[in-house]
Amino acid sequence: MYKYVLKIKCSDAKGLIYKISSVLYKNDLNIEKNSEFVDNENNKFFFRARLDGTIDTQKIKNELQDEMPRDAKITLAKKVKKQVIILATKESHCLGDILLKHDSGELNANILCVVSNHDELRPLCEKFGVKYHFVSSSDLQRDEHEKEILNVLNKYKVDFLVLAKYMRILSQSFVDRYEQKIINIHHSFLPAFIGANPYKQAYKRGVKIIGATAHFVNNNLDEGPIIAQDVIGVNHEQSWKDMQKAGRNVEKTVLSNALDLVFDDRIFVHQNKTIIF
Amino acid sequence: MYKYVLKIKCSDAKGLIYKISSVLYKNDLNIEKNSEFVDNENNKFFFRARLDGTIDTQKIKNELQDEMPRDAKITLAKKVKKQVIILATKESHCLGDILLKHDSGELNANILCVVSNHDELRPLCEKFGVKYHFVSSSDLQRDEHEKEILNVLNKYKVDFLVLAKYMRILSQSFVDRYEQKIINIHHSFLPAFIGANPYKQAYKRGVKIIGATAHFVNNNLDEGPIIAQDVIGVNHEQSWKDMQKAGRNVEKTVLSNALDLVFDDRIFVHQNKTIIF
Amino acid sequence: MYKYVLKIKCSDAKGLIYKISSVLYKNDLNIEKNSEFVDNENNKFFFRARLDGTIDTQKIKNELQDEMPRDAKITLAKKVKKQVIILATKESHCLGDILLKHDSGELNANILCVVSNHDELRPLCEKFGVKYHFVSSSDLQRDEHEKEILNVLNKYKVDFLVLAKYMRILSQSFVDRYEQKIINIHHSFLPAFIGANPYKQAYKRGVKIIGATAHFVNNNLDEGPIIAQDVIGVNHEQSWKDMQKAGRNVEKTVLSNALDLVFDDRIFVHQNKTIIF
Amino acid sequence: MYKYVLKIKCSDAKGLIYKISSVLYKNDLNIEKNSEFVDNENNKFFFRARLDGTIDTQKIKNELQDEMPRDAKITLAKKVKKQVIILATKESHCLGDILLKHDSGELNANILCVVSNHDELRPLCEKFGVKYHFVSSSDLQRDEHEKEILNVLNKYKVDFLVLAKYMRILSQSFVDRYEQKIINIHHSFLPAFIGANPYKQAYKRGVKIIGATAHFVNNNLDEGPIIAQDVIGVNHEQSWKDMQKAGRNVEKTVLSNALDLVFDDRIFVHQNKTIIF
Repeated sequence: MYKYVLKIKCSDAKGLIYKISSVLYKNDLNIEKNSEFVDNENNKFFFRARLDGTIDTQKIKNELQDEMPRDAKITLAKKVKKQVIILATKESHCLGDILLKHDSGELNANILCVVSNHDELRPLCEKFGVKYHFVSSSDLQRDEHEKEILNVLNKYKVDFLVLAKYMRILSQSFVDRYEQKIINIHHSFLPAFIGANPYKQAYKRGVKIIGATAHFVNNNLDEGPIIAQDVIGVNHEQSWKDMQKAGRNVEKTVLSNALDLVFDDRIFVHQNKTIIF
Repeated sequence: MYKYVLKIKCSDAKGLIYKISSVLYKNDLNIEKNSEFVDNENNKFFFRARLDGTIDTQKIKNELQDEMPRDAKITLAKKVKKQVIILATKESHCLGDILLKHDSGELNANILCVVSNHDELRPLCEKFGVKYHFVSSSDLQRDEHEKEILNVLNKYKVDFLVLAKYMRILSQSFVDRYEQKIINIHHSFLPAFIGANPYKQAYKRGVKIIGATAHFVNNNLDEGPIIAQDVIGVNHEQSWKDMQKAGRNVEKTVLSNALDLVFDDRIFVHQNKTIIF
Repeated sequence: MYKYVLKIKCSDAKGLIYKISSVLYKNDLNIEKNSEFVDNENNKFFFRARLDGTIDTQKIKNELQDEMPRDAKITLAKKVKKQVIILATKESHCLGDILLKHDSGELNANILCVVSNHDELRPLCEKFGVKYHFVSSSDLQRDEHEKEILNVLNKYKVDFLVLAKYMRILSQSFVDRYEQKIINIHHSFLPAFIGANPYKQAYKRGVKIIGATAHFVNNNLDEGPIIAQDVIGVNHEQSWKDMQKAGRNVEKTVLSNALDLVFDDRIFVHQNKTIIF
Repeated sequence: MYKYVLKIKCSDAKGLIYKISSVLYKNDLNIEKNSEFVDNENNKFFFRARLDGTIDTQKIKNELQDEMPRDAKITLAKKVKKQVIILATKESHCLGDILLKHDSGELNANILCVVSNHDELRPLCEKFGVKYHFVSSSDLQRDEHEKEILNVLNKYKVDFLVLAKYMRILSQSFVDRYEQKIINIHHSFLPAFIGANPYKQAYKRGVKIIGATAHFVNNNLDEGPIIAQDVIGVNHEQSWKDMQKAGRNVEKTVLSNALDLVFDDRIFVHQNKTIIF
């Protein structure tokens, strides 16, 4: 089983694989799996390798940096559980699914705490012994509320924020602090039905398929890089509440799949799109 | 095998099924299958039955009309092949699929002719012995071009127009002539990517799933009642042309499924949505 | 919202819908939805209606019985939460999903207790305040073990047993006691990969899609009437353990969907197949 | 756009990527895309690269052979259209779909001819100007019939045989002549419903999903390496003939997808499984 993940993103050039594999070979590293992608449109090269053995990461990084184009962004890090905070509001299905997977050891992450603008989900978190912070937004401006949330977040060293049906829009300044570190689950097949109550929108439009989308959050609502999507069929007999109920299983599965990809360092982001290895 | 299709659409009221089944029972009709739906939001009742035997359709309709609410719209017609004209432009996959099914007797319709604003698809149609009308749009205003198309269409007695990748937008007056009689295949998962080149849009947005949508055409572009949709997964390795290629199989299957539903009289339209039995 | 469910299964005959709707209409009942199906091959008629209002169920049943064919099996019952016992072994994903839905009020059932042949899932059940019975099978013959389980089950008045990854095969005499009352989730796309370790079988066969199947249990292993199935794509990079992990989300969703159908009285069983309304 | 495909299959060893990329780099080749896979269970390494430029293929192959493990099987060939013969029986949907794609230039293959044990599909082939050989099996033993088919096949230089709903079982000696060169479409989700009339089997079993499987043919019926699979949902209302009709779109799409993979040299076969890049 691999212990390190090497990720390289740089301008494309001839011989990159040769140069990378040369460094790895000369350092006698076991490569468990290489993945690569060249984005010809943007002339970008993406590379990921899973490495085994004991590694002097700084030495390898330096040697790679010498061989790669100047703009190369190289990360080489031990595979460790990510430190994660979950934001939620009132719905329990996504949060509950994550707590269950955390509890059974299936989640490649430690849940530091759950933060919510409501108090409804406290009992669920307490069942699983996960700390719960209720940060009410009542009578607060958005920036005031976010400031209070940041006060909580700042107590922790966090790798990723997971919005597990957190129903408030985050400000640009908040999002900027956590660039490519916030994962959201949106309850529609984006870019269809951006914004509020997508199930009602889907019902009204009379679609025959509904879906869910997990994506990184950027400062445009529901427009960040898409990580995972899935769909289910619906028909005229289903009210929007029926669709909402049916959609919950899709939402939690899509979010769960996205978190696996993120926590295993399998994603590059470029030009508002994800490259997933 | 059923020989008649009865369709009723009216305001909802108590006892409608009793009243309908009473008329059918007293006339000693074989009902092969009933389907019904009540749209509570709009207080509308929809009913369809497949009937066997020899039927005095006018008598049955009159008796039903007496029992049903005043606004009842009742159709009772022998199951016959629909008379269909296909409009296409240059792409052959949807047209070819329809021609093949027509040829093998799987299509519940007669293809009267194919009309195109280009001449590329003529050889394909000639293979299958289907009349081809090339109506060039060069140097013509939209209304002039549509007038020439209407000159062709008016030579035929047509039940439905099928837009099998016909790449020109129809005017409101054209659409109004064929209300709920024009079926279009749009190469995206509507309402995502309305308009031109949805595959490029999908590629640019970085979605992980693409789709196709068959719908009735109304006077708002790509906003008519949806009949059928389907999707396939895509990934970062696929260019928009790869997506376009992969999408073709979905497009033709979705259109084919929609045509089966339309030609078998299985669809009601209400409030810009379809009820499908 | 409907309060009663009427279900009728009988030999097919002319006028059944008329006769049923006549009884319902004359009793001034609100029918929220009718569903019907005629199995021509077996000459069987299936009918289900959701009824609203206050009903003298015995009177209605008697009147219907008078009108229907002699073999008619009629049930008319108030919509109530089903009483359910869950059997599990060591895996937590299906059980946890059911407990979560139970906890959030989404499950149309009361969980009376959980019975397991291992003790691993006790902490999970205790989190949710659900009684846990550990009935070890160590040193016991199958019939002895089942006898001990029956001792537990007999303390409760149970409508359905749910096998949420219960990994022991039940004897025919056990199954016979709970005819059409045991729902199992099998971790393959039945009838492919019946029996032990379907993920290993799927891996070895090199399939490109794996699935899960929820079914009623009869006395042939994995051969009971299928209620729900779903699938996901896999590829050569996935070990059987990867497939197992990916399959868990499908297993729990399929089981959840099947339980919704069962608990809402939407299923008929005939000739080892399900008719689902 | 790439012009050559390099494929290597050998025992796994450290540094293989380094050694391959070293040869390619020193020969100044443009690598458009590398793909690799290590089958740890069988200690096998699989590699495919798409190369651009003008290449002395023999020189490159020799240099690679020197660097690779002794058991390395290396192919480096110009990307060319494959030479293909289609075998069919009476059903037109798969054959028609292939002919349409061939006609519109979407198929990366030349269709040399169609061979059938019936004469029904002749008119379809003649529409597309494709030579048709009717080789009746009437009054013939299987080996006699195959001998006559081989007489036809031997007139051509063929890369692949495509069984587009060819409904006769091929003998082991026939299959051995075309190892990994025969692609079949089976009308079920293998390994479910091996053998005759899978739709009837699926109907009888009461499955909720049906599918199709494209696979290489080996000498065990329907047990060769799987290339592609897909599924659609079905329900109790569908007769086996309805399932058969619905399945046709899946069959032809799955076969079409499989042919794209085969004709683009994207597949390795090992241990009765496919590795697809």
